[in-house]
Amino acid sequence: MNDATLPSRMGGTLSLLERYRTVRSRTEALAAPLSAEDCAIQSMPDASPVKWHLGHTSWFFETFVLDPNVAGYRLHDPAFRVLFNSYYNAVGDQHPRPQRGLLSRPALEAVRAYRARIDGHMAELLADAGRAAPLAALIELGLNHEQQHQELMLTDVKHLLWCNPLKPAYAIGGRNDGAGPSPLRWIGFDEGLVEIGHEGPAFSFDNETPRHREYLNRYALASRLVTNGEFAAFIADRGYRRPELWLSEGWDWRCANGVTAPLYWEDAAGSRAFGLHGVRPLDPAAPVCHVSLFEADAYARWAGARLPTEAEWEHAARDATVEGHFAEDGVFDPQPAQANGRLGQLFGDVWEWTRSAYAPYPGFRPAPGAVGEYNGKFMCNQYVLRGGSCATPRSHMRPTYRNFFPAAARWQFSGFRLARDA
Amino acid sequence: MNDATLPSRMGGTLSLLERYRTVRSRTEALAAPLSAEDCAIQSMPDASPVKWHLGHTSWFFETFVLDPNVAGYRLHDPAFRVLFNSYYNAVGDQHPRPQRGLLSRPALEAVRAYRARIDGHMAELLADAGRAAPLAALIELGLNHEQQHQELMLTDVKHLLWCNPLKPAYAIGGRNDGAGPSPLRWIGFDEGLVEIGHEGPAFSFDNETPRHREYLNRYALASRLVTNGEFAAFIADRGYRRPELWLSEGWDWRCANGVTAPLYWEDAAGSRAFGLHGVRPLDPAAPVCHVSLFEADAYARWAGARLPTEAEWEHAARDATVEGHFAEDGVFDPQPAQANGRLGQLFGDVWEWTRSAYAPYPGFRPAPGAVGEYNGKFMCNQYVLRGGSCATPRSHMRPTYRNFFPAAARWQFSGFRLARDA
Amino acid sequence: MNDATLPSRMGGTLSLLERYRTVRSRTEALAAPLSAEDCAIQSMPDASPVKWHLGHTSWFFETFVLDPNVAGYRLHDPAFRVLFNSYYNAVGDQHPRPQRGLLSRPALEAVRAYRARIDGHMAELLADAGRAAPLAALIELGLNHEQQHQELMLTDVKHLLWCNPLKPAYAIGGRNDGAGPSPLRWIGFDEGLVEIGHEGPAFSFDNETPRHREYLNRYALASRLVTNGEFAAFIADRGYRRPELWLSEGWDWRCANGVTAPLYWEDAAGSRAFGLHGVRPLDPAAPVCHVSLFEADAYARWAGARLPTEAEWEHAARDATVEGHFAEDGVFDPQPAQANGRLGQLFGDVWEWTRSAYAPYPGFRPAPGAVGEYNGKFMCNQYVLRGGSCATPRSHMRPTYRNFFPAAARWQFSGFRLARDA
Amino acid sequence: MNDATLPSRMGGTLSLLERYRTVRSRTEALAAPLSAEDCAIQSMPDASPVKWHLGHTSWFFETFVLDPNVAGYRLHDPAFRVLFNSYYNAVGDQHPRPQRGLLSRPALEAVRAYRARIDGHMAELLADAGRAAPLAALIELGLNHEQQHQELMLTDVKHLLWCNPLKPAYAIGGRNDGAGPSPLRWIGFDEGLVEIGHEGPAFSFDNETPRHREYLNRYALASRLVTNGEFAAFIADRGYRRPELWLSEGWDWRCANGVTAPLYWEDAAGSRAFGLHGVRPLDPAAPVCHVSLFEADAYARWAGARLPTEAEWEHAARDATVEGHFAEDGVFDPQPAQANGRLGQLFGDVWEWTRSAYAPYPGFRPAPGAVGEYNGKFMCNQYVLRGGSCATPRSHMRPTYRNFFPAAARWQFSGFRLARDA
Repeated sequence: MNDATLPSRMGGTLSLLERYRTVRSRTEALAAPLSAEDCAIQSMPDASPVKWHLGHTSWFFETFVLDPNVAGYRLHDPAFRVLFNSYYNAVGDQHPRPQRGLLSRPALEAVRAYRARIDGHMAELLADAGRAAPLAALIELGLNHEQQHQELMLTDVKHLLWCNPLKPAYAIGGRNDGAGPSPLRWIGFDEGLVEIGHEGPAFSFDNETPRHREYLNRYALASRLVTNGEFAAFIADRGYRRPELWLSEGWDWRCANGVTAPLYWEDAAGSRAFGLHGVRPLDPAAPVCHVSLFEADAYARWAGARLPTEAEWEHAARDATVEGHFAEDGVFDPQPAQANGRLGQLFGDVWEWTRSAYAPYPGFRPAPGAVGEYNGKFMCNQYVLRGGSCATPRSHMRPTYRNFFPAAARWQFSGFRLARDA
Repeated sequence: MNDATLPSRMGGTLSLLERYRTVRSRTEALAAPLSAEDCAIQSMPDASPVKWHLGHTSWFFETFVLDPNVAGYRLHDPAFRVLFNSYYNAVGDQHPRPQRGLLSRPALEAVRAYRARIDGHMAELLADAGRAAPLAALIELGLNHEQQHQELMLTDVKHLLWCNPLKPAYAIGGRNDGAGPSPLRWIGFDEGLVEIGHEGPAFSFDNETPRHREYLNRYALASRLVTNGEFAAFIADRGYRRPELWLSEGWDWRCANGVTAPLYWEDAAGSRAFGLHGVRPLDPAAPVCHVSLFEADAYARWAGARLPTEAEWEHAARDATVEGHFAEDGVFDPQPAQANGRLGQLFGDVWEWTRSAYAPYPGFRPAPGAVGEYNGKFMCNQYVLRGGSCATPRSHMRPTYRNFFPAAARWQFSGFRLARDA
Repeated sequence: MNDATLPSRMGGTLSLLERYRTVRSRTEALAAPLSAEDCAIQSMPDASPVKWHLGHTSWFFETFVLDPNVAGYRLHDPAFRVLFNSYYNAVGDQHPRPQRGLLSRPALEAVRAYRARIDGHMAELLADAGRAAPLAALIELGLNHEQQHQELMLTDVKHLLWCNPLKPAYAIGGRNDGAGPSPLRWIGFDEGLVEIGHEGPAFSFDNETPRHREYLNRYALASRLVTNGEFAAFIADRGYRRPELWLSEGWDWRCANGVTAPLYWEDAAGSRAFGLHGVRPLDPAAPVCHVSLFEADAYARWAGARLPTEAEWEHAARDATVEGHFAEDGVFDPQPAQANGRLGQLFGDVWEWTRSAYAPYPGFRPAPGAVGEYNGKFMCNQYVLRGGSCATPRSHMRPTYRNFFPAAARWQFSGFRLARDA
Repeated sequence: MNDATLPSRMGGTLSLLERYRTVRSRTEALAAPLSAEDCAIQSMPDASPVKWHLGHTSWFFETFVLDPNVAGYRLHDPAFRVLFNSYYNAVGDQHPRPQRGLLSRPALEAVRAYRARIDGHMAELLADAGRAAPLAALIELGLNHEQQHQELMLTDVKHLLWCNPLKPAYAIGGRNDGAGPSPLRWIGFDEGLVEIGHEGPAFSFDNETPRHREYLNRYALASRLVTNGEFAAFIADRGYRRPELWLSEGWDWRCANGVTAPLYWEDAAGSRAFGLHGVRPLDPAAPVCHVSLFEADAYARWAGARLPTEAEWEHAARDATVEGHFAEDGVFDPQPAQANGRLGQLFGDVWEWTRSAYAPYPGFRPAPGAVGEYNGKFMCNQYVLRGGSCATPRSHMRPTYRNFFPAAARWQFSGFRLARDA
């Protein structure tokens, strides 16, 4: 599934139609190893069936691009308007999220036919530059939306397969060679006024705007992510048994759920873990993954450090190249850092928890219309993650990108980097 | 799916091998209209995926017949020992019931291969009369067990399809002609000592034994089942709004679940209901179906009557022929009674709730070994239903048969008949 | 609190007024050791605050006797009509049961004033034989109702005090001398038609009627109750760890609640237990107490026996004298059996679980009017207990008395006796 | 209860002993109108019984001041070490918070005796300047801690009394004269670097430190709080029915809880509300109170505004005098703003929700030792409120004070002020 021909930055020299085809076909490639049964089941309310992701991403184009803008367009199936609506109240009713897994119909083949029909209409539209131009921003949003769901397909199917006592693999696949352990160095940053957030003509989500000033004290960031081996040392030092290391709500969560290791670990030593290639040995030098904010925060306290704020992270990453281990590599496991002592692993591998609550930037305004529900209404009781993961499409990432999940979420490819006051 | 060639009584002139093949192929015929997706999903903890039923019924033969009795038998897949164990603690661990719907693997095709392999071994065994003879009772138990799961496949998939807002049909099918309404007559029975329960060489489950004496007061039974039209009159008379008509626990159940009509009714007037052929008009003269014991009991109180005890029912049905509308008819909806004023509809159409708690008969002893877990351990907080339904195989039914479900269960084809003291 | 002057049978030579005063003052005597705080708190939804019991028993006389029958009677407080209504839908709204413990007002003193006012009106009414006579049956029902709540006051406050880590005592009190262990003998009964149920002019609840015939197979009953020492042997033999001994629903209950011993035991050896006199050593020869039907049934299966049916119990007890350890003794702990080998401990000590589901007797008709809600509507998913306990008033008991609780209930003084087929 | 003699700023000319006595006796004065029953009951897990507050505040002095620092000190009752420990893991086990209401013992009088004994020891200690001096900061923390619990006593007992259908009053009391409505004006602030947080020798909690820089864009604050009348207009405009006005989690909360008005309102028009003086008419010009962050945020969106950040609020309030309606007034209802058009109502009346998640300030370090658990471990999934309320002691408040509650909390005296980008 290594896909070296994908552009490293969206919107490069590809036409919008080419980009549309690239992203859409990538979605189908990700679903290809899965049976209709694999695609139909929902393993928990937080996750969705792959079939639903396939339908919903098409629904986005039908609902926001085709239906309002193509004269005489007829809905593929009026029932899909509700079935595949995720959370857009402005569009109307929604099939309840926890019941997405009850839909044996429409069949996977019917959803693929839906995708094909949408693709046909979109190709027609995109072939007509005059009609497509005013819709380019919306279509670009739809493609970035679809890339987000590509990652969710992987995280959701990983959870589903893990729930199965047979522990089946999603794919049999390559694995990067393990580099050795890399020493942790602290990279310092001066205090001062900085600017973060997105500006300019390139695509971003509305939650990355407006670009604005933040004042930062002196701080230092770890040169690399916290590793499996380091996290195993935290466990061995009774890290999951010492309430003084934990946020109060995190301790309650740990106790209520009997958590003793990262999700998908087979034991507390981190010797083996379940992944998209099945159960395999875990590389101690690779970044720890599938931890909640609570676990990341407890580890940081144990280590005498803290998590970075999102402003600290973005300031540090502002000029970095977006390179790292992404979904296109087809590996789907985070890889060890290079031992060069420089600030690294900023992009790909694992999403990095920050200590920043997901909140509107000063001056934030949601996009007008229904797509304004995309981000703003979730700015409560969630925390920001940065940098993308080994399940994120490379072309989807940039330094200003803000991902967000509740503090207890673990089924994403989430890890962390240490920070400290300097 | 009308299957007129099936024997009307098990064990007739069919050899055990012929009967084995008949029952097993009937299971597959029932699953035939369903996709792999339809067969994989679990709509509620009470129900199981069709795929699980297909596996579990084969597991029964493998675990109790082949594995202990065929020299050198190798398990088809050791993981299936746990995956398809329903509740037999003596056999070992069980995959948790509420998680049966998380199993996208083994694929439906793999489960069918499992069935085929079991069938091959069973055919070999059954072809050898000397080896088969001592196992005949166990194999007969396995076939009756499979017939029970045939009915559960229908009730469980009905529930699943109903959960889908598209309200898809399981099959497009025939429907018997609606007879007109039939007047309700009361059939009286004298007081006295009677005998109920199974005796003799023909097959029965252990819970039907031993045959024993019961003393009955004078009583009367309604000549036919309560109809949709009659139940709609109860609703129109505010039956669901008057606590004085309900058992206390029934009223709490009604309020907590907002129940206002039988399950699958589209409205409180009973004009349309969902069924295995999709949403269709409801025949007012047909028996009301998919009601809980609570609803049946409230209706009976409203009507100035009561539900029969299981002894009253069995005594009345002791000499009746097992005829009525069964699964082999392929209609899957209960049909109106014949207007002859005789005691009718005892068999088929709908299971009839009795007021009898499911309890051991005097002198009851569970079967020895693991199959002793089949019935006895469920004799608590359940109520007895009698007579079979339009989803029951005809050859599975007899007057002594005891079905049992919790008072709140509605997804079975459950209705009722009135009784009164005479 | 030993109260030797109480009549051993209700309705003896006492006038109704004298009996009214005796029962009512007994209620207050039971509450006397408790503070206002003790009386206000509700430890679980199944239990009620003592203050609520004090109010509700007065509400019964106000609502069913005074208000409809005393010309010009004015309700003490209209709000009490709702606050102290337990479950009589015919009377109107009810304060929700799980919120009875939120009522710091009316204060305990205000509830006592309510009792006093009701007592004044009742004394006036009862002094007038002509007016009282037609109400005698209703008043007798009210007194028996109050005696039931006397027992509930003890069981509910026992649970409350046990929830307190200080494990405070309700009263410091006498304790009967421990008799030695008594051998268990089996007392046999012939098969045949018997009659059970209440008949005649003496008081009974409606659920004890009508007297009717039952056919019994030959059976035997244990001469005494199962003891703490015997139950400890069951535990030592891994009784709580062997699913084959349990009803399916019982095993689920055991696992979900982590049950490893009877309620109030301090350890699995039964060396000490919490009681109304605080934590004290447990007498191995005394009857085991505070077990659910599930535990009683599992023990019986382990012992190669079973629980009796209520008909078997009543037939055996039909001519026995109602004597034993009752609430009037003020001991509130069951006592060892006498070692005479005769059928004993039928009354008092502990309520005896039967295997009989609580159901209407053949021909049962609830009492007319609102008091018809007293018993009949609870005839579902409960099991019958017989014989009274050390917290039951002696004058309240008779051989036909049917108590009933859900199979999982343990906070009553509930034990059991073995039975077997003979 | 108007207590004009209290110092307006802590630490003024009062000696620490005088201040100790003032605060402690104020706690008892607040409990004085309540019965032992009122003080024992817990109405929800978020709230605690008044008796527990009385014990816990004494436990604080015993555990952190007396026990470690007074030679030969003997604990009043070792069981209290656990019973009255709120959440200090470093101190040891804690009686579970949701079970604080099960403690009928120790009796209220016994808890008062505990207070008296602690007060005796503390008076002795404080009379000895040499011993007291090094403990002054800790004792000051204990007094501020006790003042927080004074407010919680009021909010918790308000909730308890409201749960009672009798709707009893805590106290019969005075009420300030209603001023007329006051026009809302916008007060603008320039962009720039500001400093917030506490610095200097006066007392503050650790979460107010360190003082640090924040960059603020231009913004404006409303001159006064949002009123009942304004909030009623939001409701009348279907504010609780329009999901587009709500945070996603807020909308789910609203639907799951059927919220249609602020807590304690008797109707959606805001004509009457329950308060500590019972149910009374609501002043449309008074600040709306007992709203969640979700409701405040939805109102702000409806009004085309937003909530302030805590930095914006603190910068605006940095030089304001701490004056307003506080607990000492004994009114316990927020009062209308003065119609002078200046920035007002910053202190007292209602806590003001901000949009700021409760997080550590840059460079924050928890206090060393067990009291380090006071604040830091709660910095997750809570939001900051500013300014104090009509239930806050005046001497407890300052511009840098950070209160915090989950977004759904409503039982505090919580309201809000609008902000907007300028």
